[in-house]
Order: sequence, then structure tokens, then C-alpha cells
Amino acid sequence: MELLEREILNKGKVLGGGVLKVGSFLNQNIDVKLLMEMGKEVKDHFKDKKVTKILTVEASGIAFAVAVANAFGVDMVFAKKTKALNADGELYTAECYSYTRKVSNILALPKEYLNSDDEVLIVDDFLAHGNATVALMDIVSQAGAKVTGVAIEIEKGFQGGGDKLRDSGVDLLSLAIVDEMEEGKITFRKQK
Amino acid sequence: MELLEREILNKGKVLGGGVLKVGSFLNQNIDVKLLMEMGKEVKDHFKDKKVTKILTVEASGIAFAVAVANAFGVDMVFAKKTKALNADGELYTAECYSYTRKVSNILALPKEYLNSDDEVLIVDDFLAHGNATVALMDIVSQAGAKVTGVAIEIEKGFQGGGDKLRDSGVDLLSLAIVDEMEEGKITFRKQK
Repeated sequence: MELLEREILNKGKVLGGGVLKVGSFLNQNIDVKLLMEMGKEVKDHFKDKKVTKILTVEASGIAFAVAVANAFGVDMVFAKKTKALNADGELYTAECYSYTRKVSNILALPKEYLNSDDEVLIVDDFLAHGNATVALMDIVSQAGAKVTGVAIEIEKGFQGGGDKLRDSGVDLLSLAIVDEMEEGKITFRKQK
Repeated sequence: MELLEREILNKGKVLGGGVLKVGSFLNQNIDVKLLMEMGKEVKDHFKDKKVTKILTVEASGIAFAVAVANAFGVDMVFAKKTKALNADGELYTAECYSYTRKVSNILALPKEYLNSDDEVLIVDDFLAHGNATVALMDIVSQAGAKVTGVAIEIEKGFQGGGDKLRDSGVDLLSLAIVDEMEEGKITFRKQK
């Protein structure tokens, strides 16, 4: 998505350790006009597929999920991060290791919020190694529901998670794919 | 807002300890059509005031903030919850005691995301004792910016925080005010 790539070039900051900071317009201070356009772009890509629910993880995926859900006219739901695997049977849970923060989180979603007839579009702000996405796919599968596809704001192509998902047959849309970055220079993957 | 009150009566659950559970349509699984209507209702109330930014706190305020920001055509930003008061001077911080969870949080916002000429509408999903709102007002004041008003999805009128804010002159819009609740019965305050 050209508009997003331009904003990343203008306002993103490349920090050490493979971190791309987009907090000033995308994931803490949020340009909601851009966000709603991104929602429409996702709808356009998946327009021929059935989507009954948008699923993300707190907190930074929530805003994008609202924009996408608005474009599709469906509900959104987010998994919460917690410390313990569920014991009481009321939650779907899946483990997710964060390379950025070097901690394991458990993602948890109340069972009542996903049904076996749901066709779920998973969305998130970033995709790097893909662990959060895989954990969310696991939760959808526990519910007996179907993953229609995955939509990401920014994929870090150089960390490989996106290509692994594509190779396994997932319909993955990343609105921008960063293939290389260093201070002052960001290279996007060409997409059709 | 009649539509919201009806949904609370249909789908809300009154739990012990003054908890009103609205996770199935409002703050975890989110009815985004209703949410966007709520954003428009807020815009309508504040239509004669200048608003340059929507401010909330993670995670449950984010979705509503997107809807309100979309109605106003401005950016939204959220404060993060953290454990320690800031020492490095790059953040505005304010302490906030949660009666529900019986813990103190520090709300933190990078200084770069609020300017002294901002006119800020603070939004949140719930208002009970009002501590989170007061902490966000403190952050706006630290930035030398102006609080235009406060918009809340559901105010727990019986906990008094909202009336205290009104008495101090804050333009507070609560889309629903619950004055009494027990299992099976919720009484809303009449509003014009």
C-alpha cells in the first residue's frame, strides 16, 4: 500500500535490534484516517471471501482490527495476554514467544467469542517471526472455526515469518513488507 | 444513548462487586457497527467545540477512541500502563488506582504525542470512581494542553466519579449512566 509505505519512510524510525518504530502515526499515536483506509484495502483484498469475525491480540492490534471490522461490517475480538495456561476450561489459550521482548506470553480468548461456524480474518500490526499469528491460528483451530486469511500492517520480511505462512498456504496480506532496513534506509518488497 | 442502553439490557451481565460485564459486545468482542454509531454520538455532543486529539488508556479504551477519532477526523493516542514513575523525562506519567483490580498503575505517554496547543477529548470505556480520567487529565495538563471534555461509554453513576467531574465543571458525556444494578435489573439515569 503506497500511502502506508510513504508514511513509514516519512515518520518511521529504524532503531537497533531490528525495531521499526511507528508509534507516531501507527501504533500508539494513530492517524485514524490512514487506519480506516488500511481497513478498506484489506476488505478489497479479501472481497471474494467470507469473513464473519476479525481476531487480533491486545493491545497494538486493536485499532487496526476496528478499522478492518468496520470495512467488513462484522465484529472484532481480541485475545488477551496472560501469564498462565488456562485450567478452568472457559478459555482458548495458546503460547506465544516474543523475540522482541524475550518473554513467552499466553494468549487467551473466552470460548464464547468464537464459534465453530466462524470464518476468521486474523489481523495484527506487525508480523516478524509470526509467533503471534500462529498462536491466534491455533486458537481459531481449537474453536473448530476456519482461518480465512491474515492481514498485517507491516511485515518484517527479513525475519521470515510471513514467507513461512505463505509457503504453508495461508492467504496473507501485508500492507507493507520491509525486506531490509538500516538507519536512514528502508527497502520495501515489491508487491502487485 | 438508547441503542447502547438496550444492548446493555440484552447482553450485559451484572456480576458481584459492582462489575458490569459487557465483554460480548463492547469491550472484548466488539460490535463495531454499534461502536461507530457511538463515535458519531460523541461527535454530535461536542460538535461546537474544537478537538484536535482523542486520548485514552490501553487496552479497553482503544477501540472506542478509534471510533470517536474517526467521527472527528483527528488522531487518537493511548497512554500505556506501566509499573514505575518515569525517570528519563521523555514521558508524561500519572498514577491511577484501580478499585476493580486493587492495584496502582502508572499511566505513561511519550511527550512527543501531545502538544501545548492540543485540545483534547478524553475517552474511555468505563467511568467509576474516575481515577483513570483524572490521571489522563493530569497528563494533558502536564503537556500544557487543554481538556475539551470527556466521553465515556458506560458510567457507573452509583460510584460517584462522574458527578464529581461534572461538579468541577468538566463537560462529561456518558453514553449510558447506570445508577443502580443488581442481577437481572439495571436502572439507567434519564438524560436529555
